[in-house]
Amino acid sequence: MKQSHLFTKTHKNISQQDVSINAQLLERAGYISKLMAGVYTFLPLGLRVLTKIETIVREEMDALGSQELLMPALQPRENWEISGRWDTVDILYKLKGAGDRDLLLGPTHEEVVTPLGKEYIHSYKDLPQAVYQIQTKFRNEARPKSGLLRGREFRMKDLYSFHATETDLDAFYDKTIERYFKVFKRCGLADITYLTYASGGIFSKYSHEFQTVTKYGEDTIYLCEHCKVAINKEIIEDLKQLCPQCNKKELVEHKAIEVGNIFKIMTRFSKPFDLVYTTEHDEKKLVVMGCYGMGTSRLMGTVVEVLHDERGIIWPEEIAPFKIHLISLLKADIDKADDLYNSLQKRGLEVLYDDRQDVSPGQKLMDADLLGMPWRMIISPKTVAHHSVEIKARGEREAKLIDFQAIPEFFGLDR
Amino acid sequence: MKQSHLFTKTHKNISQQDVSINAQLLERAGYISKLMAGVYTFLPLGLRVLTKIETIVREEMDALGSQELLMPALQPRENWEISGRWDTVDILYKLKGAGDRDLLLGPTHEEVVTPLGKEYIHSYKDLPQAVYQIQTKFRNEARPKSGLLRGREFRMKDLYSFHATETDLDAFYDKTIERYFKVFKRCGLADITYLTYASGGIFSKYSHEFQTVTKYGEDTIYLCEHCKVAINKEIIEDLKQLCPQCNKKELVEHKAIEVGNIFKIMTRFSKPFDLVYTTEHDEKKLVVMGCYGMGTSRLMGTVVEVLHDERGIIWPEEIAPFKIHLISLLKADIDKADDLYNSLQKRGLEVLYDDRQDVSPGQKLMDADLLGMPWRMIISPKTVAHHSVEIKARGEREAKLIDFQAIPEFFGLDR
Repeated sequence: MKQSHLFTKTHKNISQQDVSINAQLLERAGYISKLMAGVYTFLPLGLRVLTKIETIVREEMDALGSQELLMPALQPRENWEISGRWDTVDILYKLKGAGDRDLLLGPTHEEVVTPLGKEYIHSYKDLPQAVYQIQTKFRNEARPKSGLLRGREFRMKDLYSFHATETDLDAFYDKTIERYFKVFKRCGLADITYLTYASGGIFSKYSHEFQTVTKYGEDTIYLCEHCKVAINKEIIEDLKQLCPQCNKKELVEHKAIEVGNIFKIMTRFSKPFDLVYTTEHDEKKLVVMGCYGMGTSRLMGTVVEVLHDERGIIWPEEIAPFKIHLISLLKADIDKADDLYNSLQKRGLEVLYDDRQDVSPGQKLMDADLLGMPWRMIISPKTVAHHSVEIKARGEREAKLIDFQAIPEFFGLDR
Repeated sequence: MKQSHLFTKTHKNISQQDVSINAQLLERAGYISKLMAGVYTFLPLGLRVLTKIETIVREEMDALGSQELLMPALQPRENWEISGRWDTVDILYKLKGAGDRDLLLGPTHEEVVTPLGKEYIHSYKDLPQAVYQIQTKFRNEARPKSGLLRGREFRMKDLYSFHATETDLDAFYDKTIERYFKVFKRCGLADITYLTYASGGIFSKYSHEFQTVTKYGEDTIYLCEHCKVAINKEIIEDLKQLCPQCNKKELVEHKAIEVGNIFKIMTRFSKPFDLVYTTEHDEKKLVVMGCYGMGTSRLMGTVVEVLHDERGIIWPEEIAPFKIHLISLLKADIDKADDLYNSLQKRGLEVLYDDRQDVSPGQKLMDADLLGMPWRMIISPKTVAHHSVEIKARGEREAKLIDFQAIPEFFGLDR
């Protein structure tokens, strides 16, 4: 994409209301725009990142054998009366529809997916089953903050699994944990994201969170370096400050951001909705359920909190809006830069091409650092004289002169 | 995908509340599930169709040079006070957010995109520009009906263009019309979808609708067979029953479904939001705008209204959930069907594989007709004896025996 044609431009400053790093960098760079507190537009570059994250999540959830669907945001009060959550969940956006009907905007979808399961699950032969969606969700937060980390309207993947037995749920739950780690690895958060024991709420003894360690995190966790698992501060006293896996006490306190939360919800919802199946012996039993959340917009915010420097964002390759930021410093012979751009695109490389003629070289380099593509490629009179471009990884200091002919090879392609 | 593993099953009957053809067929086949009147879940097969439609729309809108973004569903009352629409639009879902703030759920996004334009459009050099989104929208309809044709929650593509002059808007508007027809053609609605003059509302003399002719339509249009354009009944008297292009009076009345609506909104929103640009002569002028809607879920419903027979849906190839419905009637040698399924998938063909062992052949064939994949492929003891499968197009009566070896060629692939 030619930068001269891009809908957005970088901003020098943004309002000081947004003190979180992810909101500051993403707004300055033109990835997101704030409409209200906790409510953001994903601008063209930002939507590219979000879509790439959601594609990764989709691939990993599909690999689990779960099937994607899309449930409504509008939900009827009746379903939340059945589950007993209409009056007990305090962040619900409630509204009136035509005919004075009470509705809410879904922050989660157990009250929709459980009755949906009743339509198709009748026998042990229909189990196990798992469905997920990637959807816009709503939480009427009193004080939204931290940019994409805690929004009133946000993007989320929620997966729901249905099982005949707790043993079957356990096996699927463990497979889901593996897939979650694959997502975090592909998003550049490997090695600093930990499975974390957390409160199970009303569902079970524990739930599990996935916490990404960063000094800017809002949560506090205690990490067992031995087992590579953590404990959320909220239950550290219940666990007598011991690692639940090795029972050792050498736990290290860290700040962290929660990037996923999974629950064995068991029969918490199948019971009130009477979601039962017939066993091989013709008995009726309640379906056992799991639910598995991951905020995709929050994940985007977390990546920025972790992967940046004083000059801007440092996107990991797989979720960067473009792989290469081609910057033309040519004033004459502009065709040479155009040709290079076209040839890179023909090779299937994703390129943001700074072809702007009315912007200074210094501004272009500052914009490139702020925007944070993995590879910066400069074409200038100096490099052209050497039949070359200057290539630098966003996170590194040293640039290299690479001959035009050798560019494909540099990016792992045939000449 | 193996049908034994599919989350959904077909239903024999659905509630008689849904009298529209698209709702009946889509619900019976397990493409959608009704949560409330006008509010549907897109089930796995249904989401595949919707996603394919939205991919087509995305490709055609990208080809216009417009850039995709994603604006919030939640919008603040203040913006709708500025445009004067908070009290005048009667289908708004209004709600209260934290801090007693008045919000609404967006049925359209002029009140968001216009102030967004102010962030990035300052000079004639920043124009023209166009952005679009594909998003869930909300309308508090008093009486939703007709399945996916008129929902309270629905999917929509909305494009907004920004121009320095009306001439520039006109040129872009015409290009958009061409792209709309490409979408309808790819969705199987070519030749029965017409550009239709309609009321311009408060914006301009006319707007344009795209109307798909079908006897089940809710709208009435008058078609000029000569110009291949139509006039919506609502303005036929204003036009003195004459075709606005050739001025002839031979117009034919048809029932039709509106599948798109585009407006030259001019300065209707740039004025109240003060979206101005600086001309080459350093004057300030209001930006001229266009807006272009297309309901993607409504388009899905329209395709079903038009393309079905008494046995079920007949999906056009490009938006069918799967290209081939492979039906195994084998009781022994099941491996032969499994091998065929695997080999088709390896060739990149999308296959729904009816591997169910506890379902009768008659039920399988009925399900295949209801589900409506473009190609039905039967493997049975009889076809295997001839080293063949039986292939039939969904809309045709005659089946052919095709040798296993010749299957790739049949679908346009190398052997």
